Amino acid sequence: MSFNSFGRVFRFTTWGESHGPAIGAVVDGCPPGLELAEADIQPWLDKRRPGTSRFTTQRQEPDQVRILSGVFEGRTTGTPISLMIENVDQRSKDYSEVALAYRPGHADYAYDAKYGFRDYRGGGRSSARETASRVAAAAVARLAIPEIRIRAYLVELGGDAIDRAGFDDAAIDENPFFCPDRAAATRWEAIVDDARKAGSSVGAVVECVAEGVPAGWGAPLYAKLDSELAAAMMSINAVKGVEIGDGFAAARLTGETNADPMRPRQESEGNDGKPVFLANHAGGIAGGIATGQPIVLRVALKPTSSILTHVETIDREGNAAEIRTKGRHDPCVGIRAAPVVEAMMALVLADQKLLHRAQIG
Amino acid sequence: MSFNSFGRVFRFTTWGESHGPAIGAVVDGCPPGLELAEADIQPWLDKRRPGTSRFTTQRQEPDQVRILSGVFEGRTTGTPISLMIENVDQRSKDYSEVALAYRPGHADYAYDAKYGFRDYRGGGRSSARETASRVAAAAVARLAIPEIRIRAYLVELGGDAIDRAGFDDAAIDENPFFCPDRAAATRWEAIVDDARKAGSSVGAVVECVAEGVPAGWGAPLYAKLDSELAAAMMSINAVKGVEIGDGFAAARLTGETNADPMRPRQESEGNDGKPVFLANHAGGIAGGIATGQPIVLRVALKPTSSILTHVETIDREGNAAEIRTKGRHDPCVGIRAAPVVEAMMALVLADQKLLHRAQIG
Amino acid sequence: MSFNSFGRVFRFTTWGESHGPAIGAVVDGCPPGLELAEADIQPWLDKRRPGTSRFTTQRQEPDQVRILSGVFEGRTTGTPISLMIENVDQRSKDYSEVALAYRPGHADYAYDAKYGFRDYRGGGRSSARETASRVAAAAVARLAIPEIRIRAYLVELGGDAIDRAGFDDAAIDENPFFCPDRAAATRWEAIVDDARKAGSSVGAVVECVAEGVPAGWGAPLYAKLDSELAAAMMSINAVKGVEIGDGFAAARLTGETNADPMRPRQESEGNDGKPVFLANHAGGIAGGIATGQPIVLRVALKPTSSILTHVETIDREGNAAEIRTKGRHDPCVGIRAAPVVEAMMALVLADQKLLHRAQIG
Amino acid sequence: MSFNSFGRVFRFTTWGESHGPAIGAVVDGCPPGLELAEADIQPWLDKRRPGTSRFTTQRQEPDQVRILSGVFEGRTTGTPISLMIENVDQRSKDYSEVALAYRPGHADYAYDAKYGFRDYRGGGRSSARETASRVAAAAVARLAIPEIRIRAYLVELGGDAIDRAGFDDAAIDENPFFCPDRAAATRWEAIVDDARKAGSSVGAVVECVAEGVPAGWGAPLYAKLDSELAAAMMSINAVKGVEIGDGFAAARLTGETNADPMRPRQESEGNDGKPVFLANHAGGIAGGIATGQPIVLRVALKPTSSILTHVETIDREGNAAEIRTKGRHDPCVGIRAAPVVEAMMALVLADQKLLHRAQIG
Repeated sequence: MSFNSFGRVFRFTTWGESHGPAIGAVVDGCPPGLELAEADIQPWLDKRRPGTSRFTTQRQEPDQVRILSGVFEGRTTGTPISLMIENVDQRSKDYSEVALAYRPGHADYAYDAKYGFRDYRGGGRSSARETASRVAAAAVARLAIPEIRIRAYLVELGGDAIDRAGFDDAAIDENPFFCPDRAAATRWEAIVDDARKAGSSVGAVVECVAEGVPAGWGAPLYAKLDSELAAAMMSINAVKGVEIGDGFAAARLTGETNADPMRPRQESEGNDGKPVFLANHAGGIAGGIATGQPIVLRVALKPTSSILTHVETIDREGNAAEIRTKGRHDPCVGIRAAPVVEAMMALVLADQKLLHRAQIG
Repeated sequence: MSFNSFGRVFRFTTWGESHGPAIGAVVDGCPPGLELAEADIQPWLDKRRPGTSRFTTQRQEPDQVRILSGVFEGRTTGTPISLMIENVDQRSKDYSEVALAYRPGHADYAYDAKYGFRDYRGGGRSSARETASRVAAAAVARLAIPEIRIRAYLVELGGDAIDRAGFDDAAIDENPFFCPDRAAATRWEAIVDDARKAGSSVGAVVECVAEGVPAGWGAPLYAKLDSELAAAMMSINAVKGVEIGDGFAAARLTGETNADPMRPRQESEGNDGKPVFLANHAGGIAGGIATGQPIVLRVALKPTSSILTHVETIDREGNAAEIRTKGRHDPCVGIRAAPVVEAMMALVLADQKLLHRAQIG
Repeated sequence: MSFNSFGRVFRFTTWGESHGPAIGAVVDGCPPGLELAEADIQPWLDKRRPGTSRFTTQRQEPDQVRILSGVFEGRTTGTPISLMIENVDQRSKDYSEVALAYRPGHADYAYDAKYGFRDYRGGGRSSARETASRVAAAAVARLAIPEIRIRAYLVELGGDAIDRAGFDDAAIDENPFFCPDRAAATRWEAIVDDARKAGSSVGAVVECVAEGVPAGWGAPLYAKLDSELAAAMMSINAVKGVEIGDGFAAARLTGETNADPMRPRQESEGNDGKPVFLANHAGGIAGGIATGQPIVLRVALKPTSSILTHVETIDREGNAAEIRTKGRHDPCVGIRAAPVVEAMMALVLADQKLLHRAQIG
Repeated sequence: MSFNSFGRVFRFTTWGESHGPAIGAVVDGCPPGLELAEADIQPWLDKRRPGTSRFTTQRQEPDQVRILSGVFEGRTTGTPISLMIENVDQRSKDYSEVALAYRPGHADYAYDAKYGFRDYRGGGRSSARETASRVAAAAVARLAIPEIRIRAYLVELGGDAIDRAGFDDAAIDENPFFCPDRAAATRWEAIVDDARKAGSSVGAVVECVAEGVPAGWGAPLYAKLDSELAAAMMSINAVKGVEIGDGFAAARLTGETNADPMRPRQESEGNDGKPVFLANHAGGIAGGIATGQPIVLRVALKPTSSILTHVETIDREGNAAEIRTKGRHDPCVGIRAAPVVEAMMALVLADQKLLHRAQIG
């Protein structure tokens, strides 16, 4: 019942604060024999790394990962894999204002209410910096599910949605927004620039698709794949909503329009005994179990709570105060969330793969 | 790592199939000394019970609960509370069609893909009948959190949303839709009647509010209150989306418009040292921890997959087939989901209350 | 973190008190497709059943088990299996004495200290009656590990040990003591008769051997097979010690005398690539992982705490009192513990089998 | 279901191999507000540290611990505490022999059978070096249970038991054997010297007493304090047996001689409403719950498997081989196990304290 662990068999535990000496993850339950080196993890961290464009925080972190255990002669041994990333750019700034007054939208007040005090430097444990540990752990998870292809990308930013007709998978890595629609990406530059210059921030919606998940992963009833994924996504900073398949839009459909009919696969389609689904309103999950279709989900991310506008608040003594959050911040946390959503998807699916083996005996 | 259990300290396990002899729940971790009798559970089951209006399935189940353990001289003992509900109206119908062909949108194909076969009678384990067990368990959970007031109600049905201006808490129990807007409730009668007569179905959105949750419940990072609630809600049949506070709408706000400013509580407001929040976009949770504001969430329910229209599908041998789902069904599963959403909220919060005590030492 | 559940993948939860209407178990995580009927469970319950000889309690319980869920057309479905056993012979006696004063050696005082009160009828939840639920659950577990042969038997009773030279596997089921040494069994009749007539009780040591466990089950470090087995055995009423292989005697050996040398298996021995071990001081486990040798463990059971001699104690108000425990009791709880030890071994091994699949990927 | 974590609320995860760059532990669930610095941990590590006398391995490890997270301004924050100890003295020796042939009594064969290969350098993950991580984690646990006094010491070494009449608590820290009987300590010098010179090894029995545990900690039935402690102790390298209170000796007592009578505490004894127990055969636990008496347990440790005598074995290809284990080894692993037994006791009790709060609501 660790509060900082996730997963049932493929399980990871993260530790570390934004301004401590380091952050890290311990991956437990990784199968033995997988080839793993730091070079397998680094590219994923680089993708999430801050300071790579003007649209994200200017904090400079090399995010160099070290593997401290669990790998021998280049392969995982089945024992815990300890991953560590040193914090380098903990800018020595004055946190006295944040220490004293609560930033609305941040975890400041809630942490103090729970624990009596908090590490206020850069948000401490509640900082999105922690997500680097997840991305590192997920790089290991990916090795356990080579059959799965996962893609996360933004489908909406600042209320501006992509045009599905313009969806191009190749575009995702070509712009700083993980945006599959080039026209939207261009528009989003202006939106984020405007927000940044105004000291404001905008929200986003990230979509994630996992292809290759075989029918059967997942389990009724309180280990439904839906539940596992929703819990995983809701653990990401700033996420306020999760939907699977058509999600909230499904609530506006009828039984007929929401159906995912099936037909036999033809020989010409490379018949492998698996059906062809004629739609995927369900997002690849029925009754908590994968159907073999792509898993599709979307998560809503609120705008960054750190803004330059003064907001009414209280201080630790309960007196009226005003606060505006100086410092380096992402004008849209949703952007850098895309690699994290992808990471959580990988972590859930690696776990499900191992669980499925145990479940069917 | 039980797949049919939920909760960390206040934990319940459900068992039973739609057409087996009985269903039930074992509640483990309930604190000792709570006054508990079957009469404390029955009203909640009655609220969820099928066949109470023409808008729900006509299956007749008295849903009489029996307490088989864990209570002595009218009080909980701290040992497992076993609750059993006998199935009475398992109509002896012909399931041969369902046994052979997969109903799209149902768990049929996924269960077979996972387990190799399935109990096809009435959906077996995947039937929403299981939710009666949750409602019974939640009745016990409610006794552990007398300080919390929970309300779940429909805010949208068949794409028709309530008017927030017409929100009347008292209306919720006065119509068969748990609808807080009387005008909407009247419109919904027609919508559900139409769907039922057409052999079709409609979706819905249920909102749930919990008042009285003290600041501090919940915990970073993988035991966030958001994650626990999302997992709980996603485990309910037909749920395809969960959002907390403004949820997906928050993705369209800016940092300023999404802020929840705070000010000191005045003496005239009964100053208890807790701040007054000037908004609740966050839905009562920040950083995974309750802020002391009402917890607010919404869940999207797809339209019932059982419809009278023929849908293209395959049979167990992989051959093309057509199926239409006869039998007694809810034209809108979202209606009877409201008491279940409420139940899951109660179950999560009872657990969080106990967890909080352990977390702060 | 259920307190009344055991196992990680193959997991069961028990409920019920000695004098409640029924007791039972919910088995979750059982693989699908196993043939299971009540007739597969009943013989194991009969073996543990009280009142079958003059050497055990005279409580008469038919211990008829009912399967309430999880089985369809004679096979397990992968969903929870609910097992229920009605209590029949809850003799309506006067418990006022036990209700008021604490029986030393029993859980009375500890339960009151923890929970504030207790179900004092027949020991309530702390009664060994609960072990019937485990035996029922284990009957299901056995189906999942047909390759394993498990035997539990008494090697010592009232301080009188068996002669290993007289060990005869066939003898175990031929006497009421599960004793593999016929001469010892004869002596034990007198020991138990004497204890019973004197209103006294005696302790025992149960040994359990599991053959056929393949090398590789178990896992370092906090899921060691040793730890899982020790936890399982220590959960049985009256158990005060567990040792694996040579156990405490190993502490008196040297590195040479405690070694378990290996040599290659010869073709004439049916070479399957597995080594021949020349000793089994380790009891089949090294580094927490099975070596392929028989798993061997022993558990120590204290004498029944219920005796007819007056013992000094206190009452609920803290006043001095005396108590002697009337009623029907086993003069040696160790006897009926043998089937329970066997059951726990089966439950652990079924779990380990499934876990191993998940662990190696 | 992490395999390398222990505890339910106060939970730690260890990582690292004997000859990797570092080892460590992540402590999750530690209450906030406890004063913690590296100086609180270091003395406990020093006590367990190798190379401090001629009776333990000559490996030289400074075992300097670093706190990487979870502490702010000198106090625990309620977030994960990451502890790291660098490995310094990984002597660059030739492991080719160990790599190829299996050392009987070690985990070599079992690891290979499970994982297909292993980190053979110094035992890799199965090395007792891992216990340094536990000792570090336990130093944190101790801060959460200041009311508890824990002492572990050897009561038997090489088959030579202490004389209880000569028990002197003060002696424990005055000799290299954690031996409370000065005369025995003198005898043990010769025993260990002889074993070391002969390239042999001896076993030991460690006893551990925890005073100050209030009545009520622990819980029936599968979270019994007995089970938690037994699992904890069995996870320690070389442990083959655990007994609580009189343990195996209790199996030779009668109900009368095993009873722990109670009487009221007199005013002159500082009456606090708690009874005086007239014996402690139960070792402070009844029905899985602490009685308020001292918790007493003993663990049996086998002789070190690493000996200089040639032992018959097989190599990785299954061929006959001989092996003798060169290198630096403890002639009696039981000696350095005492601080580890103490650590595990502290870790279990810190967990139980937090759990108890959650259990009683």
